[in-house]
Amino acid sequence: MSGPPSPAPRGFASDNQAGVHPEVLEALAAANHGHAASYGADAWTARAEELFREHFGAEVRGFCVFNGSGANVAAVDALTRPFEAVICTDVAHMHVDECGAPERLTGTKLLTVASEHGKLGPDDVRRWEARRGDEHQAQPRVVSITQATELGTVYTLDETRAIAEAAHELGMLVHVDGARLANAAAALEAPLAALTTEAGVDAVSFGGTKNGLVLGEAVVFCRPELAEEFAFTRKQLLQLASKMRFVSAQFEALLGGELWLRSARHANAMAVRLASAVGATDGVEITHPVEANAVFARLPRPAIDRLLVELPGEHPFYVWDEEADEVRWMCAWDTTPEDVDEFAAAVAAAVAPV
Amino acid sequence: MSGPPSPAPRGFASDNQAGVHPEVLEALAAANHGHAASYGADAWTARAEELFREHFGAEVRGFCVFNGSGANVAAVDALTRPFEAVICTDVAHMHVDECGAPERLTGTKLLTVASEHGKLGPDDVRRWEARRGDEHQAQPRVVSITQATELGTVYTLDETRAIAEAAHELGMLVHVDGARLANAAAALEAPLAALTTEAGVDAVSFGGTKNGLVLGEAVVFCRPELAEEFAFTRKQLLQLASKMRFVSAQFEALLGGELWLRSARHANAMAVRLASAVGATDGVEITHPVEANAVFARLPRPAIDRLLVELPGEHPFYVWDEEADEVRWMCAWDTTPEDVDEFAAAVAAAVAPV
Amino acid sequence: MSGPPSPAPRGFASDNQAGVHPEVLEALAAANHGHAASYGADAWTARAEELFREHFGAEVRGFCVFNGSGANVAAVDALTRPFEAVICTDVAHMHVDECGAPERLTGTKLLTVASEHGKLGPDDVRRWEARRGDEHQAQPRVVSITQATELGTVYTLDETRAIAEAAHELGMLVHVDGARLANAAAALEAPLAALTTEAGVDAVSFGGTKNGLVLGEAVVFCRPELAEEFAFTRKQLLQLASKMRFVSAQFEALLGGELWLRSARHANAMAVRLASAVGATDGVEITHPVEANAVFARLPRPAIDRLLVELPGEHPFYVWDEEADEVRWMCAWDTTPEDVDEFAAAVAAAVAPV
Amino acid sequence: MSGPPSPAPRGFASDNQAGVHPEVLEALAAANHGHAASYGADAWTARAEELFREHFGAEVRGFCVFNGSGANVAAVDALTRPFEAVICTDVAHMHVDECGAPERLTGTKLLTVASEHGKLGPDDVRRWEARRGDEHQAQPRVVSITQATELGTVYTLDETRAIAEAAHELGMLVHVDGARLANAAAALEAPLAALTTEAGVDAVSFGGTKNGLVLGEAVVFCRPELAEEFAFTRKQLLQLASKMRFVSAQFEALLGGELWLRSARHANAMAVRLASAVGATDGVEITHPVEANAVFARLPRPAIDRLLVELPGEHPFYVWDEEADEVRWMCAWDTTPEDVDEFAAAVAAAVAPV
Repeated sequence: MSGPPSPAPRGFASDNQAGVHPEVLEALAAANHGHAASYGADAWTARAEELFREHFGAEVRGFCVFNGSGANVAAVDALTRPFEAVICTDVAHMHVDECGAPERLTGTKLLTVASEHGKLGPDDVRRWEARRGDEHQAQPRVVSITQATELGTVYTLDETRAIAEAAHELGMLVHVDGARLANAAAALEAPLAALTTEAGVDAVSFGGTKNGLVLGEAVVFCRPELAEEFAFTRKQLLQLASKMRFVSAQFEALLGGELWLRSARHANAMAVRLASAVGATDGVEITHPVEANAVFARLPRPAIDRLLVELPGEHPFYVWDEEADEVRWMCAWDTTPEDVDEFAAAVAAAVAPV
Repeated sequence: MSGPPSPAPRGFASDNQAGVHPEVLEALAAANHGHAASYGADAWTARAEELFREHFGAEVRGFCVFNGSGANVAAVDALTRPFEAVICTDVAHMHVDECGAPERLTGTKLLTVASEHGKLGPDDVRRWEARRGDEHQAQPRVVSITQATELGTVYTLDETRAIAEAAHELGMLVHVDGARLANAAAALEAPLAALTTEAGVDAVSFGGTKNGLVLGEAVVFCRPELAEEFAFTRKQLLQLASKMRFVSAQFEALLGGELWLRSARHANAMAVRLASAVGATDGVEITHPVEANAVFARLPRPAIDRLLVELPGEHPFYVWDEEADEVRWMCAWDTTPEDVDEFAAAVAAAVAPV
Repeated sequence: MSGPPSPAPRGFASDNQAGVHPEVLEALAAANHGHAASYGADAWTARAEELFREHFGAEVRGFCVFNGSGANVAAVDALTRPFEAVICTDVAHMHVDECGAPERLTGTKLLTVASEHGKLGPDDVRRWEARRGDEHQAQPRVVSITQATELGTVYTLDETRAIAEAAHELGMLVHVDGARLANAAAALEAPLAALTTEAGVDAVSFGGTKNGLVLGEAVVFCRPELAEEFAFTRKQLLQLASKMRFVSAQFEALLGGELWLRSARHANAMAVRLASAVGATDGVEITHPVEANAVFARLPRPAIDRLLVELPGEHPFYVWDEEADEVRWMCAWDTTPEDVDEFAAAVAAAVAPV
Repeated sequence: MSGPPSPAPRGFASDNQAGVHPEVLEALAAANHGHAASYGADAWTARAEELFREHFGAEVRGFCVFNGSGANVAAVDALTRPFEAVICTDVAHMHVDECGAPERLTGTKLLTVASEHGKLGPDDVRRWEARRGDEHQAQPRVVSITQATELGTVYTLDETRAIAEAAHELGMLVHVDGARLANAAAALEAPLAALTTEAGVDAVSFGGTKNGLVLGEAVVFCRPELAEEFAFTRKQLLQLASKMRFVSAQFEALLGGELWLRSARHANAMAVRLASAVGATDGVEITHPVEANAVFARLPRPAIDRLLVELPGEHPFYVWDEEADEVRWMCAWDTTPEDVDEFAAAVAAAVAPV
């Protein structure tokens, strides 16, 4: 990806360029009262853990961490031994955007499969079975899927279940990189547990940052026995906050009511609005189904340049695939209909023959 | 260490049980305006980097990270190859309290030396010279000192300089674990640069969390050539925040004025007040010079038990050395004179013969 | 790969199923004289180092290690920092057959490209340029090619040079996995230096085991400055033999005269003989150019089964690609023309319509 | 340690400067017959595995590896998760002489205790109990003792049993670094199983190289369930020989009869002879009980210099502790009484007043 990293009011570069939801900031401020036990032995963290159980299932165990790479790496570390491997797509965030941290820090090998619109299927799991037991090859142990995917698509509940069944049949575990799990749940109109625990998922990286937090993700183990040693894993992988209450309090704001869902629904709706607007424009081709909060589109290179260079900082976004002239437009919890309409008009103008 | 991890208004367990300074929260809220480029390409981060140069020297390069272990591990990783080793005391935080993260994540070996009141000296550096060049032994490359130390003492500027000279003579580098560097600077009445860059230090883990931030530390490279690849190191070691502006803005609050110094001075003063009050009490022996914001004391076991068990949650603190009946009392930016006096009275009562 | 691992007189499963050349055993026995300094400070090792310079170039530095994975992993470790990556083909031994050791032990990420008959080209190097400088992505630093390749083909001198030029232009280094470098040199009728140092290669894993040693490989650095810290790397990666003279003496046997070349030429010739014999057989399709000591062929599944099941242990070999009914037949230094002819006859019989 | 690494007929520098026992070379040559399945699926390896069961217990599982560091690191890796730690003495080979490989490659932390003549005791195990469950500290999981120790002493069967009991009570495992286990068994006049499996040991690094092999060590798991995934661990840690039969055949020579015991007894006897001879010399002080094949002694510095400098290469040995003027003299399977007597005379001459 390349593109303008300069700040802007509300662009379409990434949902992590958005700010913090006011309710989250309020919760953070409200947690600033006197002393509290550090490293998670506080009331806010107890409450966050309770909320993870409410949303993901009565038996789950959730642990707050700092960021998405931290959640993914710590989850993989908990689920694997160093000679074991993780099956994921070749567009998986953990493969493409984490600077090799999973390999370096956990010792795992990533076994990539070509994705269809960002998704893999049960056959992509089964194809690795042949290497089981061969000491020369890293042993497939975890299937990691991203939900919503890096390409803005969403696994249906049935699709997730089918992957989990294939994995479990072969003695593997399923991890969901859920940096945008809320967007997927909103899209599927299903509770978080339905997408994860109830679909056979074993562990989740549950994202908060892109959905309106200052920072904060959680590793949620759907089966508690997988979490037994995770306190050590989290600490050793540099993901344990000393003033944990300020991370936990944000999750309370997110999950205590419907903020997580409201924000995700809104971002998704903005993506649909944008896709509808630009999809009708001659010269713009939507390249992946718009199922969450991202729109991927192909448009003429001069149009891309006009949008990025002539309107710099106004509507920043990333060119996803330079060779294919494919761009990514992300919507966030704070994207407004006016932002979308204004940007869609700019796109229309950029592609229009002069 | 063992002790009560339960929350409490304002105890003496750790400066990381304190909350966030109101000015820091205000700065964080003020940064919540529109979209901003992620991963540090924002105006708040540019400002924080400028402030690191103001405080540590015109040539330094500072990078925000999440927590203290993250800062230490990333700094060590930047300064070493995997077959190289770090000299530190046997009470060093990186040796005792980071769950083996430095060894696991960087591959380094820690070469520990017995400390005197938490400090090491130039001879502790020189003694490792004999193993240079022997392929069977990890090669000493970094000397890491903690300032203020884990035992509440402070290296003088001359002591730091002498260590740096010994290290540099032998081709080694000096790292300062400065989780409480502000307290040391306040104690020495010297600018941060005097304790670090000007004393020959090569890299610093500069602490913000214990001095009133929500969370945030920085790795400061006193010599910029050491920082050339650190962007990758930080990312790979899971220490890169996507919404970086909210970490950077806190450092602006801390370093933009004198908040860092005011808070550190106050915490130090509270420790002196406490030491004066309890030091005069029969049966209480102060075990280390009180030079920063910690008081270490030995007192009769029954008195410890009375304080911890009969007044649980009132004044939590840690028993530092169970066998020696030695306790640690930490003061924070928000400790009040009343807190100190009330606690000193409780100590006096606890040690008094019934 | 799957197939019968049972022992056999002289089959075609792998050149590492062959024994030790008698001249090598003699050299090993001759080195068994009195005491010798350990860890390589002995006369045999000095002689081996001299031979590496004779064969690879006057400036090179060679280090004996135990096995091929050890050579590859240690070489990669010497050439990279943990956030850097290695470009290789998707059939590379280091990607497929080393149980994830490169990733785990060095922290590197492997960036795979689809191979054409086991080879990559300069464009496969250049395509990774776009990710340079992006902290989210492991940084390409080394291009690793296998010579002769895992598919029995050989890079021409020009092909190697073109890859090296592309790599060096982009600030990358070139590593050759030369487990079968001798076979490549025999095929090209060129000295080892011509394939490596003179073609711009920076480091080589030079194989001895498959070419008639008991065990022994060498990491040869074509540019000596890359070897400065390798003594530590070799030791830390568990590749330093205490009684080194017995590894070094084998290399003296191999490289002191023309044994390396004689053996490699013979193995290559046997592969050509086999390919000629079976290539003419209806139903057998040679799938890759036969340029070194391997023959890859596609034949009807029932024929494969007849060869493996009905003649078990007689002529063991591996099914390389189960789905494609593709097999691999390796020739070794000790394969005889009679072995080949007998096996070719068996193949002909197996594919013949009953 | 420092000293002359130059070769010599038969000195006292290290038992790894000795050559290969003729019976071992014969076995190696005898294994050179036709092709054999690689990576251990051969008859020689099956026989070696049988011999490990004969010597260590009917249930054990033994795996050949290349060298002592490889055995130790692979054993530790099999017994620990990365956040777990190994208790060992501060003179342990794995702490002092393996270039930090255990830490780097397995992620473990070494928790060192001061040794008494190279040994630790049950209290050294129990003292780490306090850190159990504290996520800030690497969790003690393995106690590693060296048998015979690095200082030439031997744990009695009762001592080993007491350590194992303490370890098992606390949920820890016991590893024996047995690079010189044969010497310990010879000293105790007990079978290998008595020192290990029957004494409660869980895993052993069993040394062959120092006892007359070309190279070869074995990791023996006394409890087979600990070995379940070790094939992967061995491969990933670069310790799997392709032509395994040539390692295994050496173990057959060593363990098939009494060669292991004969050689070890002889080396021990030579150490006793040397200690007796020099112990009576004025100015020479034996510093550790001579229980295996090493003699440690303190003698005047000028005498050390005379022995090392004036007779260079004649009788090389290491100065063990430069500051204490303490030297180490190792005897090997091939040390002769004449070697000992001649050297003892040289020592006597060196210390005699001129």
